Amino acid sequence: MRFFSDNAAPVCPQVLQALVDGNMLDTAYDGDRWSKQLDGRFSDLFETEVRALWVPSGTAANALALAALCPPHGGILCHRDAHIQNDECGAPEFYTHGAKLMLVEGEGAKLTPATLNAALGAIRTDVHQVQPHAISITNATEYGLVYTPEQVAAIGDLAKARKLGLHMDGARFANAVAHLGCTPADVTWRAGVDALSFGFVKNGGMSAEALIFFDTRLADATLYRRKRAGLLLSKGRYLAAQLLAMLEDDLWLDNARAANGGARMLADAAGERLVHAVEANEVFLRVTPEEAAGLRALGFDFYDWGPAEARLVISWDQDAEAIRPLAEAIGTL
Amino acid sequence: MRFFSDNAAPVCPQVLQALVDGNMLDTAYDGDRWSKQLDGRFSDLFETEVRALWVPSGTAANALALAALCPPHGGILCHRDAHIQNDECGAPEFYTHGAKLMLVEGEGAKLTPATLNAALGAIRTDVHQVQPHAISITNATEYGLVYTPEQVAAIGDLAKARKLGLHMDGARFANAVAHLGCTPADVTWRAGVDALSFGFVKNGGMSAEALIFFDTRLADATLYRRKRAGLLLSKGRYLAAQLLAMLEDDLWLDNARAANGGARMLADAAGERLVHAVEANEVFLRVTPEEAAGLRALGFDFYDWGPAEARLVISWDQDAEAIRPLAEAIGTL
Amino acid sequence: MRFFSDNAAPVCPQVLQALVDGNMLDTAYDGDRWSKQLDGRFSDLFETEVRALWVPSGTAANALALAALCPPHGGILCHRDAHIQNDECGAPEFYTHGAKLMLVEGEGAKLTPATLNAALGAIRTDVHQVQPHAISITNATEYGLVYTPEQVAAIGDLAKARKLGLHMDGARFANAVAHLGCTPADVTWRAGVDALSFGFVKNGGMSAEALIFFDTRLADATLYRRKRAGLLLSKGRYLAAQLLAMLEDDLWLDNARAANGGARMLADAAGERLVHAVEANEVFLRVTPEEAAGLRALGFDFYDWGPAEARLVISWDQDAEAIRPLAEAIGTL
Amino acid sequence: MRFFSDNAAPVCPQVLQALVDGNMLDTAYDGDRWSKQLDGRFSDLFETEVRALWVPSGTAANALALAALCPPHGGILCHRDAHIQNDECGAPEFYTHGAKLMLVEGEGAKLTPATLNAALGAIRTDVHQVQPHAISITNATEYGLVYTPEQVAAIGDLAKARKLGLHMDGARFANAVAHLGCTPADVTWRAGVDALSFGFVKNGGMSAEALIFFDTRLADATLYRRKRAGLLLSKGRYLAAQLLAMLEDDLWLDNARAANGGARMLADAAGERLVHAVEANEVFLRVTPEEAAGLRALGFDFYDWGPAEARLVISWDQDAEAIRPLAEAIGTL
Repeated sequence: MRFFSDNAAPVCPQVLQALVDGNMLDTAYDGDRWSKQLDGRFSDLFETEVRALWVPSGTAANALALAALCPPHGGILCHRDAHIQNDECGAPEFYTHGAKLMLVEGEGAKLTPATLNAALGAIRTDVHQVQPHAISITNATEYGLVYTPEQVAAIGDLAKARKLGLHMDGARFANAVAHLGCTPADVTWRAGVDALSFGFVKNGGMSAEALIFFDTRLADATLYRRKRAGLLLSKGRYLAAQLLAMLEDDLWLDNARAANGGARMLADAAGERLVHAVEANEVFLRVTPEEAAGLRALGFDFYDWGPAEARLVISWDQDAEAIRPLAEAIGTL
Repeated sequence: MRFFSDNAAPVCPQVLQALVDGNMLDTAYDGDRWSKQLDGRFSDLFETEVRALWVPSGTAANALALAALCPPHGGILCHRDAHIQNDECGAPEFYTHGAKLMLVEGEGAKLTPATLNAALGAIRTDVHQVQPHAISITNATEYGLVYTPEQVAAIGDLAKARKLGLHMDGARFANAVAHLGCTPADVTWRAGVDALSFGFVKNGGMSAEALIFFDTRLADATLYRRKRAGLLLSKGRYLAAQLLAMLEDDLWLDNARAANGGARMLADAAGERLVHAVEANEVFLRVTPEEAAGLRALGFDFYDWGPAEARLVISWDQDAEAIRPLAEAIGTL
Repeated sequence: MRFFSDNAAPVCPQVLQALVDGNMLDTAYDGDRWSKQLDGRFSDLFETEVRALWVPSGTAANALALAALCPPHGGILCHRDAHIQNDECGAPEFYTHGAKLMLVEGEGAKLTPATLNAALGAIRTDVHQVQPHAISITNATEYGLVYTPEQVAAIGDLAKARKLGLHMDGARFANAVAHLGCTPADVTWRAGVDALSFGFVKNGGMSAEALIFFDTRLADATLYRRKRAGLLLSKGRYLAAQLLAMLEDDLWLDNARAANGGARMLADAAGERLVHAVEANEVFLRVTPEEAAGLRALGFDFYDWGPAEARLVISWDQDAEAIRPLAEAIGTL
Repeated sequence: MRFFSDNAAPVCPQVLQALVDGNMLDTAYDGDRWSKQLDGRFSDLFETEVRALWVPSGTAANALALAALCPPHGGILCHRDAHIQNDECGAPEFYTHGAKLMLVEGEGAKLTPATLNAALGAIRTDVHQVQPHAISITNATEYGLVYTPEQVAAIGDLAKARKLGLHMDGARFANAVAHLGCTPADVTWRAGVDALSFGFVKNGGMSAEALIFFDTRLADATLYRRKRAGLLLSKGRYLAAQLLAMLEDDLWLDNARAANGGARMLADAAGERLVHAVEANEVFLRVTPEEAAGLRALGFDFYDWGPAEARLVISWDQDAEAIRPLAEAIGTL
């Protein structure tokens, strides 16, 4: 019974079916009829003109977005616990050609105007220090918290005032939107976001993520960067088809709601043990090593998060029946 | 009736079935039971211990291999018409952090010791000129010619004598081996190859290529480079499964033989019109613009290759019946 | 008797004196009273507003200029024999983060609209090929030929039409201007040049070259790139002072005229042996190995240039008396 | 009366004289008779075989050293207040092609095995996190504290045990050695240092710093990196001559002793106002804004260091007479 990662979940049937359906014979790379629909379909979803590129990983989406927003000699403000800082083996540095991640504080891996201003205030504005060019936030955060449209907009205002680009790492964007109940537009471009890494793989996809540019001028150079990085797959239509299948009938939102619902069940069972509010599909639990071992002895698989915490991640395919045993086990700790 | 690219072909059924079969629930990234089989399966195939990494594109495989063989301040000798020079938007430069491709001559995009020595002889050995660190050859070449084991070994000997690494771009390695009838070992490590980009996508796969290190010491750092490039997909098991399906019962070789056979049919029909010998699955034809237009009017789709040539590429799924109409049309030109 | 390089010459007295004069106590880096004069002094010289940065080498000036004009995924058109291609160990690739030098033909290392257009015409305009973003020309060229204002303007027009930046490597810019008798403006910005590496070290300086931006918008980011490259010397005033000394009373032009005059003497003696017209301070001579050995036996030091040529370079400090013995020796070959 | 930077001081007479003396006519770049002496002279000084390269800035020395010790996908442990992190505009990231600086705590900008182990313990050893490859320490530190040979050796032992390279930023290495009274060997290679940026410019030089490799295998590739970075000056002999002049009769040590002595005078006057022990040529003083303004009104020039501190730096040329007025002014605060 796996709760260690939503990357461990299988691909959802509609996505697999899209790959099998029909004979996906077409032009190579991204000239095919599936890839060509992406700009339009995502523009509809976001109620504005966007440019949408498939890429095979979230790390690739993040790194390409940051390279579009920050020159090699610039800096990117992000939370000290951000995925781009801790879990991408320096991909931002590779794609930006050596820009510096500037680490910012904040509860639950959330940035605020206050913590951003504190960080910005400590940077000298001379040629000897790297100057900031962009901010990157994660929604939902690495601890499963969700920025509201208002919170994003406050950061977006600060970014605009400081002439900084704003990137959102949306590896679990679907879970954030499912939690908020807002439109995807409200929590992105309407709040000042320039580029979004829109995650689909954790949410039921196989190998396709979407990189969305709200500042559409950033897209053209990124097409070259994507190719140059070996990320322009020769049968890209199989990636485009995955994204289209996820958009169809709001499958992406349904899957996210399911995962969030499972997390809610665990959160209710966990009560005071919760380290963070549970707003998406991750649950951080205070447990002793003995308690963690006890849960594992019952067959539950999850990661420790430091010495006295456990991280439980719920996937799109885990329904109430799959969650209940763990909820009960937590309840009886 | 498509003859413009083997990237346009659909995925072969066994590969698709591998993705659908069973519930591919497992550890994220490359810790799963499919990915873990790759070193062993490819070691068996190559009759020596190799390290095998999946990557989502041939450009990625090439660029990672070159980065493993050449430092940022070094140079890579390759043919003037090589894919890495003309069709990867600078991926080798990106991954190596600025190494220089040193262009070498040769008939049919094939390097020889003679043309390599000519190029090497023109390089001053001082600190003001970039010094060569590696050679990259393509087998089958960009013009569908195949290096024999002896030809590769002659280059391998030169590489060893000059302390240069040797990379083989095997986007159509299967077609080369099918043509040669040798073992995969004979035309690679036994002939001095250090790293091979082993292509599967053009040959029936969906999104997985294999990067094979015969010099296994190169693999460890490449794991970090792969991650850092956003190429370590979070559900990597779906890539590993494709490779395993292609290896099963020599599917990769059967597919290549089929495509080569189709090219043979066209070559026989083309006779004196052939620009290059037809050894793999590509046919280059001398045609006037009017003749090319005539073929297109009959429904055949292909690329012009300069003003008076056409390139015809046959895919794994095109059987005699699919080829015959074009063979007949060429015969009646 | 040295004729192998103008880098071998000593520093001219006025430059040395400037370093000794007074107590050069002032702010560190480039905030001092000497550095602050550069923009103004060079703007006067060029009769337009420019931004002028000192750097400690011509390679640094070239590489910074190219990085300002070309993104990492772009290409730079230059002559196959250009210094940036053959003599800078990949500095352009390092500073641009992997842009590709696109080699162009041309007599005497000079580009023309015709050879540029031929090169441009061979580049496919798709995402798989590196796209050109800049042109770099050398004036005087690596073979001592000088582009006239008209010739530069023809390239400048082409650059503008194609939206390419135009860089001039002016390691021997002084010699070119001395030959032309035109204003520095005529052969640079008035002819479409965006950035100039203005060489002073070969012409009597010690360690300071000037990077001139006619497109002044390029300068600000370059300040960061210069620092980031370790090129912002902590006592930069000693570099600025060298440049100011060279500008004083047109010392730069006098020195160049002297060197050109010496080359003229040799050219007159060489007659039919000349490989290229002698327009600056370099003389390329057809000589047999025996003749070359004979000259060396007489004490003349120079480089072979291929098997049957010699390159003779005259420095600012070599007057008629210093040249005459070699002129006579050549005359009696 | 300047106390804001030792970079503001003039060049010392012996160095200037070396540039003026004789006719520095010789081979270009680093093939001259001065440059060729460096390996030998520094090997003598360090009592072991070293490789010594001149470079024109301390940032260049640091960045080249780090690039030799750390691959692009690696990390470098350094103090949070290190010059390489805060004052080089990302030079380490540029030269290493994107390695990550990993910030470590420590009093007075000094690392200890304890703080290093704490930082190392927080790094997961998987492919998703950047792995450390080197440690960089500054001696004297950014706050004027000096690592003893024992303290360096403790870090050297840790580095060796963890297979990390060890770099010392010795922008004020002379001041450190002058304070310690030990041999240069004791506090470098005997304590495990692989590469040293040996600063001369702050200590009386004009534009030459030395990059010393105790691990001599690192030098060869660095020759290419230096050229590629535009740091191989064409009249390098003028840099070599500066270094030789500084080594002559221990001028470097005399100059450092003089500066340290000046700092000692100020420290004695400052008493309880000292923020850090004064071991080199920097004095950090607790002062109110009013007191700082008062000192400035008296003609003393220095930098504020945060809201309630002043940094006073003493240069090689400031003797007791030059220091006394400030010492007295501090004493009467």
